Amino acid sequence: MNEVCHICEVGPRDGLQILRSVMPTAAKLRWIEALVAAGLREIEVGSFVPAKLIPQMADTAEVVAAACRLPGLKVVALAPNLRGAQAAYAAGAHRISVPVSVSRGHSLANLNREPAAQIEEVARIVAWVRDQPRAMEVEGAVSTAFGCSIDGVVPARATLAIVEGLSRAGVDAIALADTVGYANPAQVGALLRDAGGAIEGLHLHDTMGLGLANALAGLQEGIRNFDAALAGLGGCPFAPGASGNIVTEDLVFMLESMGFATGIDLDRLIAARAALQAGLPGEALRGQVPQAGIPKTYRQAA
Amino acid sequence: MNEVCHICEVGPRDGLQILRSVMPTAAKLRWIEALVAAGLREIEVGSFVPAKLIPQMADTAEVVAAACRLPGLKVVALAPNLRGAQAAYAAGAHRISVPVSVSRGHSLANLNREPAAQIEEVARIVAWVRDQPRAMEVEGAVSTAFGCSIDGVVPARATLAIVEGLSRAGVDAIALADTVGYANPAQVGALLRDAGGAIEGLHLHDTMGLGLANALAGLQEGIRNFDAALAGLGGCPFAPGASGNIVTEDLVFMLESMGFATGIDLDRLIAARAALQAGLPGEALRGQVPQAGIPKTYRQAA
Repeated sequence: MNEVCHICEVGPRDGLQILRSVMPTAAKLRWIEALVAAGLREIEVGSFVPAKLIPQMADTAEVVAAACRLPGLKVVALAPNLRGAQAAYAAGAHRISVPVSVSRGHSLANLNREPAAQIEEVARIVAWVRDQPRAMEVEGAVSTAFGCSIDGVVPARATLAIVEGLSRAGVDAIALADTVGYANPAQVGALLRDAGGAIEGLHLHDTMGLGLANALAGLQEGIRNFDAALAGLGGCPFAPGASGNIVTEDLVFMLESMGFATGIDLDRLIAARAALQAGLPGEALRGQVPQAGIPKTYRQAA
Repeated sequence: MNEVCHICEVGPRDGLQILRSVMPTAAKLRWIEALVAAGLREIEVGSFVPAKLIPQMADTAEVVAAACRLPGLKVVALAPNLRGAQAAYAAGAHRISVPVSVSRGHSLANLNREPAAQIEEVARIVAWVRDQPRAMEVEGAVSTAFGCSIDGVVPARATLAIVEGLSRAGVDAIALADTVGYANPAQVGALLRDAGGAIEGLHLHDTMGLGLANALAGLQEGIRNFDAALAGLGGCPFAPGASGNIVTEDLVFMLESMGFATGIDLDRLIAARAALQAGLPGEALRGQVPQAGIPKTYRQAA
């Protein structure tokens, strides 16, 4: 039995939020269905943020509700505050991801709140969720964990302090996010070792081309949960210079080639790009494996 | 003192050979000069192959001779056989790289010779070079070391047999080449461990997006010599499906960010793209760091 790696597809949330065009709800759902058909079992489908700030996310409640009807899918939504968490719960989300920036500059730009105040908000969210009749997981997503395009270098101790704050706030899981793609593998490895097993997942961007090398560094420290976006969509509207997430297709290729089981069918995953492209005509899609084609060695090795 | 990593720029050889257009000699030299100005101290400037097969390399003798006049530069040329090695020597090359394919299909397509016969050719080259008054290093470059787009899976034992053959032939150094970009980090690590220190360098292609992750796996096994190409040029005319080399700019960013000293100035390296583009108008240049810009954390960390 190969060891399992979990991929959470974040394209429908992280991939759309920086685009000018708004993808129609029906197109989002066809894309999500194509991802599920490829074997993805966890998808971050949207963000409960004010529609006037990010119009692409205005239909998130509807998307969450529809996605929850797909069998076997864990539906994740981003919720920046208690109000967002309550909306996610009402829509039926199985898990929320609550961002907490390490750097003050990104925290103020993205959340209009100091990092310490956001930790308090997370504690309020956890307390409210625990009082509800239905379970909903709360993940703390540590933004700018490895660097910030506004504040520059982010010291490891600052990231570790946020991780500790999230642990105290009682979240179910903590992920480190390289929001702007400044991380390097040595830094990823060192931070994960310093965090001593407190980190469940990594959310990596490929801004500098180091995304998969950073994922490898995470793998080597025992991380088995990775966010990724089909066709490498992504970015942060409040993090200048950030570019796309690591490419789900290339990540699956790497993990499966290394002997991990992702449960994802790479042919069907590449086929899901058509559903994405249909909803975003003209948008450039990234990804080396889709461009080169799956090599014959992939099947032979498996 | 940071540990040193050596990068050999292979764009002028590996980057040009698959292109339809022929770069004028003067443009090649301006590009090479820009690379030297950025701090590169080893450049593979051309290939001594029949001009009718690869017209882009017809001026290699002239390019080698001119590059040898640049102070401090180790000038490398590819030589597929004794005749090429003799031409490289006559032109003044400091080092030749002699390809030996592991897979029979690539060996016949690229060299029109069985792998075992090519090992014998390497032995003849080494013997001839040793008889000359001037020293010239001979590197054995193990092509399709991790997989082949013609033959498919390449067993590790086949690669190790070629490595052993090259050692017996008396080469000065051995590099493993992922000619078509099918390698994964687990495979790179395992093969390097099995080779037990016999490997000096890695030549990686980014066909599947795993190039830097594979470089990281090599680093972790003690490899400190990497081939790379400015703007990710590259491919093999006789290896269908191969795409560009790992991007020198992104590799330098990764290595320097991790604390290695490459001796390369990243600003000047990115500036060298203008000299490349001038010689190849209209050609698409790859590279994440040049596109995103060098982040402020790069200087702060250094």
